[in-house]
Amino acid sequence: MDKLKTLHGGNITEAIKKYNTENIIDFSANINPLGLPKSVKNIITNNIHSIIHYPDSECTDLKDTLKEYLKIGAENLLIGNGSAELIFLIAQALKPKKVLIPIPTFSEYERAAKLTGGKCVFLKANETENFEVKIERIIKFLPRIDLIFLCNPNNPTGFIFSREKLLTLVKNCQKYKVTLVIDEAFIEFVKNADSLTMVKIAADSPNILVLRSLTKFFAIPGLRIGYLVGNKKIVENISKFQPAWSVNSIAQLVGKEVIKDTSYIKQTREYILKEKEIFFKKLKMINGLKPYPPSANFILCKLIENRFNSKTLSDLLARKRILIRDCSNFRGLNNKFFRVAVRKRDDNFLLINALNKTLNYEL
Amino acid sequence: MDKLKTLHGGNITEAIKKYNTENIIDFSANINPLGLPKSVKNIITNNIHSIIHYPDSECTDLKDTLKEYLKIGAENLLIGNGSAELIFLIAQALKPKKVLIPIPTFSEYERAAKLTGGKCVFLKANETENFEVKIERIIKFLPRIDLIFLCNPNNPTGFIFSREKLLTLVKNCQKYKVTLVIDEAFIEFVKNADSLTMVKIAADSPNILVLRSLTKFFAIPGLRIGYLVGNKKIVENISKFQPAWSVNSIAQLVGKEVIKDTSYIKQTREYILKEKEIFFKKLKMINGLKPYPPSANFILCKLIENRFNSKTLSDLLARKRILIRDCSNFRGLNNKFFRVAVRKRDDNFLLINALNKTLNYEL
Repeated sequence: MDKLKTLHGGNITEAIKKYNTENIIDFSANINPLGLPKSVKNIITNNIHSIIHYPDSECTDLKDTLKEYLKIGAENLLIGNGSAELIFLIAQALKPKKVLIPIPTFSEYERAAKLTGGKCVFLKANETENFEVKIERIIKFLPRIDLIFLCNPNNPTGFIFSREKLLTLVKNCQKYKVTLVIDEAFIEFVKNADSLTMVKIAADSPNILVLRSLTKFFAIPGLRIGYLVGNKKIVENISKFQPAWSVNSIAQLVGKEVIKDTSYIKQTREYILKEKEIFFKKLKMINGLKPYPPSANFILCKLIENRFNSKTLSDLLARKRILIRDCSNFRGLNNKFFRVAVRKRDDNFLLINALNKTLNYEL
Repeated sequence: MDKLKTLHGGNITEAIKKYNTENIIDFSANINPLGLPKSVKNIITNNIHSIIHYPDSECTDLKDTLKEYLKIGAENLLIGNGSAELIFLIAQALKPKKVLIPIPTFSEYERAAKLTGGKCVFLKANETENFEVKIERIIKFLPRIDLIFLCNPNNPTGFIFSREKLLTLVKNCQKYKVTLVIDEAFIEFVKNADSLTMVKIAADSPNILVLRSLTKFFAIPGLRIGYLVGNKKIVENISKFQPAWSVNSIAQLVGKEVIKDTSYIKQTREYILKEKEIFFKKLKMINGLKPYPPSANFILCKLIENRFNSKTLSDLLARKRILIRDCSNFRGLNNKFFRVAVRKRDDNFLLINALNKTLNYEL
């Protein structure tokens, strides 16, 4: 496994250079389509001078705001340089020998597990069942694994567990003393997020961890900011592996303000809930395309009975200044899959048209 | 070893809260006293919107500028979330079993080495010899160690190697296949930095690495940005351990502009060269104080025949809104040592007065 640019979506910098225009519509990164919360510009402009000081290594103010937002204690929180850093810190601190990863999913779990000497067991979800991850299948593995990376809702498939099923898994992980890492990077986009999140259970459990991101929901991936929720002891253990001053000052300042922006949060939820369904319906109507039911702000699609593969389609759309996420490098998928983010309605319709044209009319 | 707030200087956030004023003079962090380069404010203000995109994980533009600045290849560079991240990545990638650390020095080397299972051998410099690190003593250890962390100029002592001695060490490390990590975080403040840096040698050597920081010299510690120089193979190896998107967008944008600011660089060098000598002379004149000869932008001091220790002195000065770095938690020092940064002349003189008063007149 290599840290390659092509592993992830969101390589817009490269596209901007290649096509020499900023006028690119990026469906490849799953970022809140409403854009930056209003407060961000002023927070940054008014605090530029603060960068002459080291950041607060403990992120005290941000933790104080987050603990209110999540109704947990500050001692249950570790802030990271994006949740990507936290995935690596978990692997370093716990050094799991056998790691279960339901696939297809975000590739950094595998990379982090392998770098600390872990062996990965991959549990492949079935595309004919909309990539549902079967709790029963996971439970069978519990006696012989140390840790599970579970992305919920799952990137890129959109599959999400019911609270009931997740609680069954949690209980069994506790029984077998298996660490369950639930990556909720996209959960705030989901209907009933409050009842589906495991944040409170993680804060009280010795072996349940929840990862969250501010990047996607608040449209600030450039700043790098994520957090981990766990019980006090495990959070302390993991934090020992974090380099000093990992979270930059601007991320801390912006982070603590945006999570208080209840109107932005409400607006985003309402928008995504409605728009993802409209987008999904339109995608379903395209000949040669199978979209999978979305739960968050992105939709996985498969090319069926089609002369294109996801690479050629991505390239054709890129020439029209439209970026999609070719999913052929996801373990468990192939070169018929791609992922699109839910964007503003005009953009989404523009993609629908481009897909219709490319897949069905052009030669 | 724990990641505690008290481990490092620069905890101004805490002081600002405690004394409820921003009017604090911080000698505890070694930051360029000229403040932010002029361009920084505009770069940030004009690029706020770019944070809605993921950062370039490869830092292509920043590397392209740095390779010109350093006259090496882009393939010799790895950019980090501060050089602190790079120290940890080196330890993770190379997993050295026996690590030699000349002390007293920056504490993150020891922390990083121990977290990856390394055993540390500490080579204590003699305070009666101005903490000179003896190359001959290091060389004797080479047959039984894997890696050396060498801070040059050394934080907090200010000791710096001559080019000749360093080349002798480099040659011997190559002979014994010991990895030599030279942390040049402060070298740009030093006279003849160009002849003392090992950047070019690192770019061509299989086992010599140089760490650099943009944080201190360009007064941007809040943004987090450092880099590593090594040969292509070792840089590729270490980069595999880095989480995706480690370096935030703003750090990348600011970084590539400030290193082109030749007038700021020249002004800083001239200012520090002159001012550190004036500050040093004044400190020498204080009864009960022994400062050690500085090479960069900070000065280590020892309290001699004095009723105070570094903790009580720090506390007394903090009440006057002056922060110094109590060095009692540096391995190899004790509670008689503290470190001060070279700041603007007015500030430096204000500290001189406060020290004079506190140490010699007040009861």
